[in-house]
Amino acid sequence: MSAGPSLDDIRVAARRIAPFIHRTPVLTCGALDAMAGARLHFKCENLQKTGSFKIRGATNAVLQLSPAEAARGVVTQSSGNHAAAVARAASARGIAAHIVMPKNAPAVKCRAVEGYGGVITFCEPTVDARDAGMKRLLEETGGVLVHPYNDRRVIAGQGTAALELMEDVPDLDVLLVPVSGGGLLSGNAIAATSLRHSVRVIGCEPANADDAFRSLKSGHIEKNATADTIADGLRAQLCDLTFSILRERVDEIIRVTEQEIVDAMRLVWERMKLVIEPSAAVALAPAVARGIRADGKRVGVLLSGGNVELSALPFH
Amino acid sequence: MSAGPSLDDIRVAARRIAPFIHRTPVLTCGALDAMAGARLHFKCENLQKTGSFKIRGATNAVLQLSPAEAARGVVTQSSGNHAAAVARAASARGIAAHIVMPKNAPAVKCRAVEGYGGVITFCEPTVDARDAGMKRLLEETGGVLVHPYNDRRVIAGQGTAALELMEDVPDLDVLLVPVSGGGLLSGNAIAATSLRHSVRVIGCEPANADDAFRSLKSGHIEKNATADTIADGLRAQLCDLTFSILRERVDEIIRVTEQEIVDAMRLVWERMKLVIEPSAAVALAPAVARGIRADGKRVGVLLSGGNVELSALPFH
Repeated sequence: MSAGPSLDDIRVAARRIAPFIHRTPVLTCGALDAMAGARLHFKCENLQKTGSFKIRGATNAVLQLSPAEAARGVVTQSSGNHAAAVARAASARGIAAHIVMPKNAPAVKCRAVEGYGGVITFCEPTVDARDAGMKRLLEETGGVLVHPYNDRRVIAGQGTAALELMEDVPDLDVLLVPVSGGGLLSGNAIAATSLRHSVRVIGCEPANADDAFRSLKSGHIEKNATADTIADGLRAQLCDLTFSILRERVDEIIRVTEQEIVDAMRLVWERMKLVIEPSAAVALAPAVARGIRADGKRVGVLLSGGNVELSALPFH
Repeated sequence: MSAGPSLDDIRVAARRIAPFIHRTPVLTCGALDAMAGARLHFKCENLQKTGSFKIRGATNAVLQLSPAEAARGVVTQSSGNHAAAVARAASARGIAAHIVMPKNAPAVKCRAVEGYGGVITFCEPTVDARDAGMKRLLEETGGVLVHPYNDRRVIAGQGTAALELMEDVPDLDVLLVPVSGGGLLSGNAIAATSLRHSVRVIGCEPANADDAFRSLKSGHIEKNATADTIADGLRAQLCDLTFSILRERVDEIIRVTEQEIVDAMRLVWERMKLVIEPSAAVALAPAVARGIRADGKRVGVLLSGGNVELSALPFH
């Protein structure tokens, strides 16, 4: 019996959050297919409300709060996309959102949180400082925690992306998903492998923040020594819940270099005319820069978000 | 009796080119609606094959060449998007394409032409030099001209964009379209006003290359004194054919400043996560920067293309 949500939980989540999210398009690109030697199906969560998939899990959690819980408001910590999602989900329910963000979070993500009425407390950009800041906020405000990934409701919400993708492309062979804390990968691995047992689920991770790769290899949760990656959404690390789901459901973690991330990002911008953030490019990088043994196969690529600071792009 | 193609011509074109183009999505954005005070429906030709609407008209023309004509190959001149479209349409038919491009055309557009097998001849960036270069190429190669806009087949092809848009949004009140040589605006004005008599068609033009505005005002074809605009796709000027169609079908030309173009472009990148080129932003600029008397109305915005040099963006 798995600790994570079931396919049914994910289906219920999909119905619950449907009025609050976009059904995002699945796009294809002949030029990138030719480079990858596979048929790529891009699930465009960069076109999702708040500019990332995070609104799925945050909405699924916030809508399940009891009236008494909701009245206390919500608290979380995030480098940006989960923060904006929680702020928006809270705002839709008319409740307060208090959020700890690392002080190096992109300005565009901070503005989004404030735009949805979220209240930001900045902290040092380390896992320990973020956790400590969140603990303090929980005590001070009395709010309810909506953790970015250590939460079955959040994981079920994120899994609705693969549910939609596999309605559009039922015969998927491979699914590429970025991994950080593991909420997105967990939920989508559950949805995808439940719907089609043979689908190979691959987590994609920056080599500079490769805790998931090392954790699945060692069989213990490993910490990131550093998180020095352009993929600002992928600097967190696995928790017990996501680690146990990944061990069950994920076939492989592939690590990519910083240059491979930038190259993949540029390809999507130039060839698909889509603005994606570096964290989203991490899912494409293995398909275009590395062999993923997917010749001619149908490969899903989860483009997780598109929130990026236009005045500080990595293109030269 | 109009000189331009009829709605039937446009419908036939739509069927003829369907196997060679994307049916592009029509996207919406709550944040931009709030800024414009209207419901905006974006026809995303930046997501079209070759990255712009130009493949519609070029394909419609190339497919109508007789076998004898086709054997001679095609010739055209373009700042980039029509060039890539003709190269691709010719390549799909297995014939040669010779193209005159101004030497200041974006490198990304030149690479696209070469990627489709087109042969480029560079010229000075003036209308006269472009026309002279094209005349010389026609003589040297014996090829058939596929003019970027002075061609009923091309105009009919471009008009298929509005045909699709109004299948998706039949009750459109206003349609905003960029204008340069006037092929896109002509074709889409014919389609839109034929399908719905009350729709108000507005051409959008850089103030720095405002020949269409001045021509419709004076009643004669006026030349651009300069074409010093970031909208590199909007530096051409009307011909007899497009001028006569615009006089019949277009309600108004709105001119926008260079800053308004960059601001509108940034909004689409940041809020919609779409890569559009400056020429496409010209169609949105009046809705967000100016009063277009469209309060609460359904406004179509033709995002004409997304080919832009990522290493030279106007965002700071």
